[in-house]
Amino acid sequence: MLVWAGTATFAATGALVAVRKRFDLFGVLVLAAVTAVGGGAIRDVVVGRLPPSNLTNEGLLWLVAATAVLTYLLRSRLDPESDLLYAFDTIGLAVFAALGAERGLGADLGMWGTVFAGAISGVGGGIIRDLLSGEVPGILYRSGDLYASAAAIGAATVYWSAAIDPSIAMLAGTLVTVGVRVGSRVLGLQLPVPRGTA
Amino acid sequence: MLVWAGTATFAATGALVAVRKRFDLFGVLVLAAVTAVGGGAIRDVVVGRLPPSNLTNEGLLWLVAATAVLTYLLRSRLDPESDLLYAFDTIGLAVFAALGAERGLGADLGMWGTVFAGAISGVGGGIIRDLLSGEVPGILYRSGDLYASAAAIGAATVYWSAAIDPSIAMLAGTLVTVGVRVGSRVLGLQLPVPRGTA
Amino acid sequence: MLVWAGTATFAATGALVAVRKRFDLFGVLVLAAVTAVGGGAIRDVVVGRLPPSNLTNEGLLWLVAATAVLTYLLRSRLDPESDLLYAFDTIGLAVFAALGAERGLGADLGMWGTVFAGAISGVGGGIIRDLLSGEVPGILYRSGDLYASAAAIGAATVYWSAAIDPSIAMLAGTLVTVGVRVGSRVLGLQLPVPRGTA
Repeated sequence: MLVWAGTATFAATGALVAVRKRFDLFGVLVLAAVTAVGGGAIRDVVVGRLPPSNLTNEGLLWLVAATAVLTYLLRSRLDPESDLLYAFDTIGLAVFAALGAERGLGADLGMWGTVFAGAISGVGGGIIRDLLSGEVPGILYRSGDLYASAAAIGAATVYWSAAIDPSIAMLAGTLVTVGVRVGSRVLGLQLPVPRGTA
Repeated sequence: MLVWAGTATFAATGALVAVRKRFDLFGVLVLAAVTAVGGGAIRDVVVGRLPPSNLTNEGLLWLVAATAVLTYLLRSRLDPESDLLYAFDTIGLAVFAALGAERGLGADLGMWGTVFAGAISGVGGGIIRDLLSGEVPGILYRSGDLYASAAAIGAATVYWSAAIDPSIAMLAGTLVTVGVRVGSRVLGLQLPVPRGTA
Repeated sequence: MLVWAGTATFAATGALVAVRKRFDLFGVLVLAAVTAVGGGAIRDVVVGRLPPSNLTNEGLLWLVAATAVLTYLLRSRLDPESDLLYAFDTIGLAVFAALGAERGLGADLGMWGTVFAGAISGVGGGIIRDLLSGEVPGILYRSGDLYASAAAIGAATVYWSAAIDPSIAMLAGTLVTVGVRVGSRVLGLQLPVPRGTA
């Protein structure tokens, strides 16, 4: 259920970027789809689960297509900065990161590999979306709150709590990602940016 | 036979972009190769057929290398807008899309997965070429005719006609892609581009 | 041993690019990691060895993380043009290219596939680094010395010398890559760049 909500939200954010870039309807569908399923697909390639599970999930892909078309039609009424979108986007990020970490654990990845699998599930789609739009991926420099690092910390939480009690690992990881993202926004926390030169 | 013609054509278009960008001879070879075999390679990764079949096809790769060098040498005499290049490019697109869809079907992908496998076979190489050249992938916004969407519609045709009669699916898909591309050019059809704002 | 030195060097070059781009600390870690392990990961995807071996190598990934943080801290004292960095970068390139070619041989790739596996091991991380930084990959146009082509020639050396004596193939390939890169710098050799137009 949360996965479906997160997938639709990611699809909508992808479609909105495509609209802003004046891509045609096909481009809107493509950007919605890569944003929604790209991260999970990279994760499945890396853990060797092929074809990627979300590419064989017809219901989910219909949801992505419907969301893309709906976003296209309602484009002038949607606000990319709305709190609702922020909330769902945070849920999607957290759930995808935790699920990705679980897949990484299942493939016997170590700590770093699990963190990668979790983080890429959460932000990989957005990275592809940004590259296809001709932008430097926002997660690498965008300030305002912790986003990709929240996903990475959530994935690490899954890894470490699985050693204690696997049954709570997913929940713990999801909550930590949400907490880090929302907390960093409320508190105005950011990661250090280099001063000086290289 | 058509696959070889399509592969050589894609290699030539990649090499021409590299020449226009003033890449060196190595860059010309790389851009020719990714344009020619990149789409099929992504498709094979997705369906779990590794190593990708075109990376083990030595004859085809020699053809790509020879085409790249020849394009480099004849660069001032080749016209990227020629009708001949358009015709071969259309054939390559249509055949790759139909073959990709067939591979998707063979891997038990559903409708959307099959459409993805077909479309990415046709246009994936061009997407990588554009990204490596520092361009936004043309298929996302370029007007003039239906290109990537023609490949997607052809792949969907393979999917649906395979349910009726597998022996005609490839042919039907190929003809539909050619028909949609050429038809959209003749009729001046385009996909809607968003007006208003997001 | 050489692999570890090469990995750390690649991580440092990735971190330096991130610092120059004013990415935050997370971005520095990401760019260090993709530069260090991205090429090997693509190679392992292509040869079907999943999960990629460097993603399960915890010690190596700790080295990458430590190098990234250290580079970030020492950023104002590091010189990206130093001879030491050049030397280690050349060693990393040569060793990765030879190892990648060996993996390609092991997966029964032919000559071109082996050259691809070797070259992508050496330069794939740098390509992803450049794409994520919003740059056209330097290997496609940068002059000064032969870099990616040195890796490709080294990989081809592994392929051909393996037919003669497998026990010397790795060493021969490594030395050829080093020789071509250093030789081209000393002699001022470059690949031809297209004049005229396309």
